[in-house]
Amino acid sequence: MSTIDKNLTSFLDIAADSDFSIHNLPYGIFSAKDGSPRAGVAIGEHVLDLSVLEEAGALTLDGGPYFNQDKLNAFIDSGRDKWTKARETIQQLLSADCATLRDDQDLQAKALVKQADVTMHLPVRVPGYTDFYSSEEHATNVGTMFRDPANALLPNWKEMPVGYNGRASTVIISGTEVVRPSGQLKPKADERPIFSPCKRLDFELETAFIVGKPNQIGRPISVDNAWEHIFGMVLLNDWSARDIQKWEYVPLGPFNAKTFASEVSPWIVTMDALMPFQTTCPTQDPQPLAYLRGEGAEVSFDINLSTEILPEGADEATVVCETNFKYMYWSMAQQLTHHTITGCLVEVGDLMGSGTISGPTPDSFGSMLELAWNATKPVELKGGGTRTFIEDGDTVIIKGYAEKDGVRVGFGEVSGKVLPALDFNFSE
Amino acid sequence: MSTIDKNLTSFLDIAADSDFSIHNLPYGIFSAKDGSPRAGVAIGEHVLDLSVLEEAGALTLDGGPYFNQDKLNAFIDSGRDKWTKARETIQQLLSADCATLRDDQDLQAKALVKQADVTMHLPVRVPGYTDFYSSEEHATNVGTMFRDPANALLPNWKEMPVGYNGRASTVIISGTEVVRPSGQLKPKADERPIFSPCKRLDFELETAFIVGKPNQIGRPISVDNAWEHIFGMVLLNDWSARDIQKWEYVPLGPFNAKTFASEVSPWIVTMDALMPFQTTCPTQDPQPLAYLRGEGAEVSFDINLSTEILPEGADEATVVCETNFKYMYWSMAQQLTHHTITGCLVEVGDLMGSGTISGPTPDSFGSMLELAWNATKPVELKGGGTRTFIEDGDTVIIKGYAEKDGVRVGFGEVSGKVLPALDFNFSE
Repeated sequence: MSTIDKNLTSFLDIAADSDFSIHNLPYGIFSAKDGSPRAGVAIGEHVLDLSVLEEAGALTLDGGPYFNQDKLNAFIDSGRDKWTKARETIQQLLSADCATLRDDQDLQAKALVKQADVTMHLPVRVPGYTDFYSSEEHATNVGTMFRDPANALLPNWKEMPVGYNGRASTVIISGTEVVRPSGQLKPKADERPIFSPCKRLDFELETAFIVGKPNQIGRPISVDNAWEHIFGMVLLNDWSARDIQKWEYVPLGPFNAKTFASEVSPWIVTMDALMPFQTTCPTQDPQPLAYLRGEGAEVSFDINLSTEILPEGADEATVVCETNFKYMYWSMAQQLTHHTITGCLVEVGDLMGSGTISGPTPDSFGSMLELAWNATKPVELKGGGTRTFIEDGDTVIIKGYAEKDGVRVGFGEVSGKVLPALDFNFSE
Repeated sequence: MSTIDKNLTSFLDIAADSDFSIHNLPYGIFSAKDGSPRAGVAIGEHVLDLSVLEEAGALTLDGGPYFNQDKLNAFIDSGRDKWTKARETIQQLLSADCATLRDDQDLQAKALVKQADVTMHLPVRVPGYTDFYSSEEHATNVGTMFRDPANALLPNWKEMPVGYNGRASTVIISGTEVVRPSGQLKPKADERPIFSPCKRLDFELETAFIVGKPNQIGRPISVDNAWEHIFGMVLLNDWSARDIQKWEYVPLGPFNAKTFASEVSPWIVTMDALMPFQTTCPTQDPQPLAYLRGEGAEVSFDINLSTEILPEGADEATVVCETNFKYMYWSMAQQLTHHTITGCLVEVGDLMGSGTISGPTPDSFGSMLELAWNATKPVELKGGGTRTFIEDGDTVIIKGYAEKDGVRVGFGEVSGKVLPALDFNFSE
């Protein structure tokens, strides 16, 4: 496990509770006023423009330039040696001990932009999006509500990290507004379905990892090598239409209910930055099959996660959920290995969602479905009002950070506001 | 409905039973010896090199060049006016009446290559792959075998074209060999699963359409406009590991069982070429909800389809299935509309599989699962031998063509050979 060099400080003023300490250095794609999208690193309240450093010769990687581009795929595809060199160089340039940037006001003026003044963009081209279902508490809650409390987990759940293919085209960046979807619902068991706006719109509090190294088609990634294929993590709100899902999902899984919006946070926190916050998965019982066992197979991370709801016009958001990534039963390494075990090709930029992350207590459940227990226990909001699902005008904000020995490595947030459904005017 | 101009003939000799008549003109990406991949059209036994015509000034489209590229996405994205102009120009250039190519031996030498001498490549970059489940006979067969013969179709099946997200990264071109996948199987109900090579490897006889025009995220494509968004069709063998699927697919759908190989034919037959072979879907009862009804909603096509199995070293392939696209209950327009109804973005090059196409008779079933009825009725092969599923060394060949009034518009074939499973050497 990496240790934290607590003596490492930046020449920039960085608040103690900033997600973007010098220990973090997450990558994103931003544009400033009149500027084209390019790669940057979040540091305190600033973005460090990597394309400026690259052009100035302060950050030179073989095979570059990598950073004057509107996606990070080329940099990520350049490989782990480059990731390491970039991180070391950027950390050095931002440190209090290094004069290069600290003492060059011209370079600072060009390379440092306030985060408040930039627009963030989707950081990677996402060739494929997969969503797992790896929180035992979440799967148990759903099974309890909709199937059999005595057999809440399906038989395959503890044998494999169950997952399904999502829709990469509707992976969207934090801040994008989400139109309430309309589709088929079946409110009455003995009547035909109706076409209607979704009445049970939900968030799913998730993280997702981004694939940093492809395999070859037909060649699985062994669990011992899986971490080599993972570049970093983001927060994910996997918006879900529960009523559409309930009617459509048997037998081939969720489709319309999930393909309208999967919203991610803008900064990719690298696995290098998360290493000091390693922990292990909950005990896996029964012991998984051999292909899911091995060096690093059960490595997890201690990442605090929360969801807030901010109704339209409200003064204050309400925290409705506080949970932690460490509750996840299956690790990211096991998810990636399982994903490729029959030979599936994964590609640089692929997004792999954790599945809803619920903890053991009712205030740690990662969706409204669970928090309001299938609409039977409305959640109270500050300033009045309750929620069983997400209403028009609500903004849902998911935040996450790791913290240890006074060092903080955070994700910022993913935030999305719900707009009313389109007006279809169908006459049946 | 378009009519066929039977007087239209080419200056090239084209066999009467060729899939690639002058009425067809399907697009593909090919490379000849020492040449880079570029766009061509199949005509008789030849490929017409469109990049040569474009460079020679014989095929000029605004915004081009489009054809000296290794994928067709840019051409397809150029829009329907360009599709029409390209088709008219190419048909004219190949016709017996036009001197431009007919009388220019130099241009012919550069632009015409024997299909036997070229390598075909994936014709489009596939941003997203979706597979539907739209054959009533197939869904009924599967439901009869695995659920309840009295209620074989699930309640949602006649209300919506059920579909699921596939894995675009493993869409592969005909001729690619497929390694038998290994994964989790559960042979005994009362024991834990095992890790094993798939023992029930299957083909799925499908077609797929290719999206030619995107929508906007959050804005569904109406069924009246759906045909405007469809460029053309290919054959698809959606390789499936039935035993892996059976264990994994509840509740989130097929994953490992389907993500190792989805194999397509190389030539995209355009909807323009298929127009003369229009027919209508089987009667849809109950009448679908309004968003699935409208102008063109139930347009289908009369396309003959077959599957052959050629065992390793065999002299002759055996036709194991003959069916027709016209049996499909849901149309491609309805599939596309349903896909986008909650706001999902579809993109140029997206591949939308029909689902296994089974007909009403036992020799028209589109998978081994159905043909050998869950391994209870082995299928006999010419030259001896039987099959319940696909064995190592078998080549599976799917062919398709439309024919009417002596005019043939065909797809050629998608062909894939199965290689033995990898040797994993796990010790449990």
